[in-house]
Amino acid sequence: MTTNEKALMLHEQWNGKLETTAKAQVKTREDLALAYTPGVAEPCKVIAADPEAAYRYTIKANTVAVVSDGSAVLGLGNIGPLAAMPVMEGKAVLFREFGGVNAFPICLDTQDTEEIIETVVRIAPAFGGINLEDISAPRCFEIEEKLKARLDIPVFHDDQHGTAIVVLAGIINAVKVTGRRKETVKIVVNGAGSAGVAITKLLLTYGFRHVTMCDKPGILAKGMEGLNWMQEKMMEVTNLEGKRGTLSDAMKGADVFVGVSAPNIVTGEMVASMNKDAILFAMANPVPEIMPDLAKEAGAKVVGTGRSDFPNQVNNVLIFPGIFKGALEGRARAITEEMKLAAACAIAGLVPESELNEDNILPAAFDPRVAEAVSRAVKEHI
Amino acid sequence: MTTNEKALMLHEQWNGKLETTAKAQVKTREDLALAYTPGVAEPCKVIAADPEAAYRYTIKANTVAVVSDGSAVLGLGNIGPLAAMPVMEGKAVLFREFGGVNAFPICLDTQDTEEIIETVVRIAPAFGGINLEDISAPRCFEIEEKLKARLDIPVFHDDQHGTAIVVLAGIINAVKVTGRRKETVKIVVNGAGSAGVAITKLLLTYGFRHVTMCDKPGILAKGMEGLNWMQEKMMEVTNLEGKRGTLSDAMKGADVFVGVSAPNIVTGEMVASMNKDAILFAMANPVPEIMPDLAKEAGAKVVGTGRSDFPNQVNNVLIFPGIFKGALEGRARAITEEMKLAAACAIAGLVPESELNEDNILPAAFDPRVAEAVSRAVKEHI
Repeated sequence: MTTNEKALMLHEQWNGKLETTAKAQVKTREDLALAYTPGVAEPCKVIAADPEAAYRYTIKANTVAVVSDGSAVLGLGNIGPLAAMPVMEGKAVLFREFGGVNAFPICLDTQDTEEIIETVVRIAPAFGGINLEDISAPRCFEIEEKLKARLDIPVFHDDQHGTAIVVLAGIINAVKVTGRRKETVKIVVNGAGSAGVAITKLLLTYGFRHVTMCDKPGILAKGMEGLNWMQEKMMEVTNLEGKRGTLSDAMKGADVFVGVSAPNIVTGEMVASMNKDAILFAMANPVPEIMPDLAKEAGAKVVGTGRSDFPNQVNNVLIFPGIFKGALEGRARAITEEMKLAAACAIAGLVPESELNEDNILPAAFDPRVAEAVSRAVKEHI
Repeated sequence: MTTNEKALMLHEQWNGKLETTAKAQVKTREDLALAYTPGVAEPCKVIAADPEAAYRYTIKANTVAVVSDGSAVLGLGNIGPLAAMPVMEGKAVLFREFGGVNAFPICLDTQDTEEIIETVVRIAPAFGGINLEDISAPRCFEIEEKLKARLDIPVFHDDQHGTAIVVLAGIINAVKVTGRRKETVKIVVNGAGSAGVAITKLLLTYGFRHVTMCDKPGILAKGMEGLNWMQEKMMEVTNLEGKRGTLSDAMKGADVFVGVSAPNIVTGEMVASMNKDAILFAMANPVPEIMPDLAKEAGAKVVGTGRSDFPNQVNNVLIFPGIFKGALEGRARAITEEMKLAAACAIAGLVPESELNEDNILPAAFDPRVAEAVSRAVKEHI
C-alpha cells in the first residue's frame, strides 16, 4: 500500500481527525448545575462587565481558528473550502500535538476578500488567535492586513510568516556554516507569492541587503508589467540595481537561492554559476526545484528542502505551534516583526555550534524543545 | 460556598470547558506524512471531485456549530457574544457528553439578522449541523427559516424546538395520567417568544386543537396592536374564538398551563380556576411561574418545572443531543416536524405505563436511554 492509499484509508477510519472533548464533566445533577445552568450565569455576568475575563473563564484563552477559503491548498490550487477541510483539520491536530493549543477549522464558503474579512471579524469572539491558511496571493496580504487592523487578537498567515521564519532560521545557520556576512550575501527568491514575499520582507528586516525576487517571467523589476500591487511594493526594496533577465541570470553570482516555486526548474549549471559554497532552499513540494544530490554535485554546500527524507527539512511545524502558544500565553495582541525575528533566532539557536554543519542547520520537526523555545521568544517580545 | 461561587471558581480552573483533541496521532515522520502533507492531499482530491465524501473523511460527519449572537442568554438578556461563551461552551460539552457529538461555540459579533445568516452560511462547510442558541425573538424565526432554506445541513433552534419537543412529551404523558383526550384539551401558553411560539406550533401539529397564547398584555388575539409578525401569524391558528382579557381570564376553565415567562406570575386562585386535575408546566428559571407545592395545594394534578430539585424536570438536554446524533448518523438534510413529533413520542414512551404517575411523566436527564431513543426516532423519519 502506498502512502497515499494508506492516508486515504486512515482518513476514512478517523472520519475526522479532530474531536471536541469536555474538560468539565457532567455526570451528576450538581455537575450540570455548575457547568451549565444555573451556575454558568456567573462567568457570563463577569464577562459582560469585563470582557477581558473571557480569557479567564472560556476557551478564548487557548484557542485558534484555522481559517481558509480553499483557494490555494497545498499544491492542489483552488479546490474550495470543503475539500480544504482535511488540511485544516490536520493543521488543528498539529496545533494541539505540537503546541498544546486548541484549534478548530473554519473553512469559508466565500472567496470574496471583503466577505472573508467580515466573516472572520464576526466569529472572532470565541477565539484567542486567527491562523490564516492556504489563501491565494495577493488576496492573502489584504485579508491579513485588514484583519490585523480590526481585531485585537493575533492574526498570522502561516504560509507567509511561518515559512519566512523557518527559512530565516535556516539561512542564519547556513550563512554561519559557510562563513558569510549578512551585509554582503546575495539572495535570490524564486516565487513571488505569499511565501516568497514574506520571506523577502523578513530577510530584509533581519538585515540582509541584497534580495532579488523572481517569478515565471524571470527577474522582477520596478516598472515591469503584470506585477500585482504587493509585488510592485516589493520592487521598492528589492533588486535595487533594476536587473532584468531570467532566473538563470539572477542566480549567477548569488550566494543563496530560496525556491517556493515549482519542481525541477533549477539545473546543475545554474547552481554551478552561483558563488562558491552556495546555499539552496528548494522548497517546492513534494518535488523540489532541484534534488539535493544534484545541487551538491554542482557545488552547493547547504541544501534544504520541504521533505523529511533529506537533511535540513524546512517545516512550518517548527514555527506556528510555538508562535501561537507564546502569543496566547502572553496575551499578545499581535504577532510583531520583533517576535518573528526572535522566533527565527531561537530556532537557529537550538542547533549548538558543535553540531552545526551543512547537513544540520535546523532542529528536527519532532524536537520537543522547539515549541517551548519559540513560545519563549515570542513572550519575551510582547 | 454557594453554587454560584463554586461555578465561578470551577470556570476559572477549567479555563475553557472544551478542548480540541487529536484522533490522528502525529508522533513520527510517517504519522505526519499520513495525517498531514503529503498524504492529506488524497482525501482533499476525493472531496474536490465529490463533496459528499466530506462526510467520509472529515469532522463534518459528526460536528455541530453552537451559534449565538448573545442577544437572549438564559435569563440574562442581551449580554453579547463574548459573555455568551460560557453558555455555548457548556452546550458543546452537553453535545459531547450526552450525544457523542462534536460541537464548537460560534459566538457572533453581530446582531444584524442578515449578517448572522450570511456568516453562518459562510462557515457551514466544516459543520454537519447548526444549533442556534439564545437568539432573541422574533429575529430567531427569520434566521432559522432563511438558514434552513439556504443550507443542506440540519438547522435547529434549540430554544424553540428542543423546548417544544420536551414539553409535548410531558403533555402527552400528563394528559394520559389525567385521563384527557387531546381533541378537547384547552391549553394556555404564556410567553409568546421563541419557546412559546414553537411549543404552540408543535402542540397543534401533534393534534391539540385549543391553544391560547398570552404575553405581557394578556391574551393575544387577532388584530391586537403590538404583535410581531410571528405572533400575528400565530393568531391564525390559536385563540380562534377571539377571546380577549388577562392571563387570569385565559386560565379559567383551561386544562393545561405552559409557562415560558416570568417568576411567580401565577397565583393559587388562577390554578383553582382551571379545570379539575390541571396540568402546569411552569418553566421560568430558576424561579417558576408558580411553585409546585402551591400549585398542587390549589388543585393541580401534574406540575413540571425547569428545575432538577422538583419532579418532572422539563430539560432540553433530553432532546438536542439525540436530535443531532440521529440527524448526523442518518445524514438528514433537515429536522422535520415528523422527526420532532417522533422524538416527543419516544421520550414520552421511555416512562413505562406501570411507572407513569403525576410525579413521573418524563425520563430523568441522566437516563442513558434517552439520546439513543431520540436518535432512533429521528433516523426512522429521515
